[in-house]
Amino acid sequence: MKKSLGAKTIVYPTPVFIVGTYDKDGRPNAMNAAWAGICCSVPPCLAISLRQATYTYGNIIEQKAFTVSIPSRDFIREADYFGIASGRTEDKFSHTGLTPVKSDLVHAPYVQEFPLVLECQLLHTLEIGLHTLFVGEIKDVKAEESILDQDGKPDIEKIKPLIFSPTSLTYYGIGEYLGQAFSLGKEIKARS
Amino acid sequence: MKKSLGAKTIVYPTPVFIVGTYDKDGRPNAMNAAWAGICCSVPPCLAISLRQATYTYGNIIEQKAFTVSIPSRDFIREADYFGIASGRTEDKFSHTGLTPVKSDLVHAPYVQEFPLVLECQLLHTLEIGLHTLFVGEIKDVKAEESILDQDGKPDIEKIKPLIFSPTSLTYYGIGEYLGQAFSLGKEIKARS
Repeated sequence: MKKSLGAKTIVYPTPVFIVGTYDKDGRPNAMNAAWAGICCSVPPCLAISLRQATYTYGNIIEQKAFTVSIPSRDFIREADYFGIASGRTEDKFSHTGLTPVKSDLVHAPYVQEFPLVLECQLLHTLEIGLHTLFVGEIKDVKAEESILDQDGKPDIEKIKPLIFSPTSLTYYGIGEYLGQAFSLGKEIKARS
Repeated sequence: MKKSLGAKTIVYPTPVFIVGTYDKDGRPNAMNAAWAGICCSVPPCLAISLRQATYTYGNIIEQKAFTVSIPSRDFIREADYFGIASGRTEDKFSHTGLTPVKSDLVHAPYVQEFPLVLECQLLHTLEIGLHTLFVGEIKDVKAEESILDQDGKPDIEKIKPLIFSPTSLTYYGIGEYLGQAFSLGKEIKARS
């Protein structure tokens, strides 16, 4: 028997994505987004949802572009700060000491020190309510060599990304390897 | 200097959500979705992206409703199976031995044995490409008492949800507690 908790935004995991944009004067900004995820394989697209009140919202509307930089756990303080301060009143790159790098594919900056970045061109905007969903087409993914596995693919265990728990407002790391997808379930399938 | 990996759907973490629907004959189905996430706080909404070829796609178009059941790691085999088989040819609930429970709020079934479930009414449909994004308004969240903390909130450490790595196609658990959000970054903010 399950207990009703009401109509709330409770799921696990949610990600910690740092969204990079330029404002109309070309100043780089970065904010923290957990309401986000991949939303299409072809073309490869990512969705992020932002409140209209954020500085980043206006920047995306203006520039039609954004990046997502994925912090490793080494940058947990900087990632959290990006979600506390507003680019309207603070130069967040300057305060963290992190480096904005202009994407050569879209008009948006990414975080040089973070191990994995995605460069996105705005494809769709969907007003939902308090949040607006932005679909960005992923034009490229760039990674530090140090987080690639022997096949040249990013390795989640080397990236050490953050996980956000929206109920406790806490961060977690990636845990232990539990098995291979499209494989563990084969035993059940074989019963058919 | 970062290495370009091309335009690909690479982010970490992605979730393991089991999407529950009824087909036009009222038969329950469940599938595995990793292209998903929260997309609005008010009204509380969740986005899941599905290929048009899936059985679940047609069910959502028909019923305008779906659930998301979040498996604990104890159900990793069942969760993986839901992503291998198709409801067009198999009764997935029957094969797993899991129990479909009809939501009393929307016309869709959830997985009784999973610790946390969300009941969603279809609010928006956005065709992107290979995948279509469905925005569901969360009408209720239901949880097993055993996964609630002392304040009555779901506890990620008790739920033990799965994480999916889209590059290695592997599952991971939740790792160690790393700190409090909207707090760790205050030291950097104080520098301003």
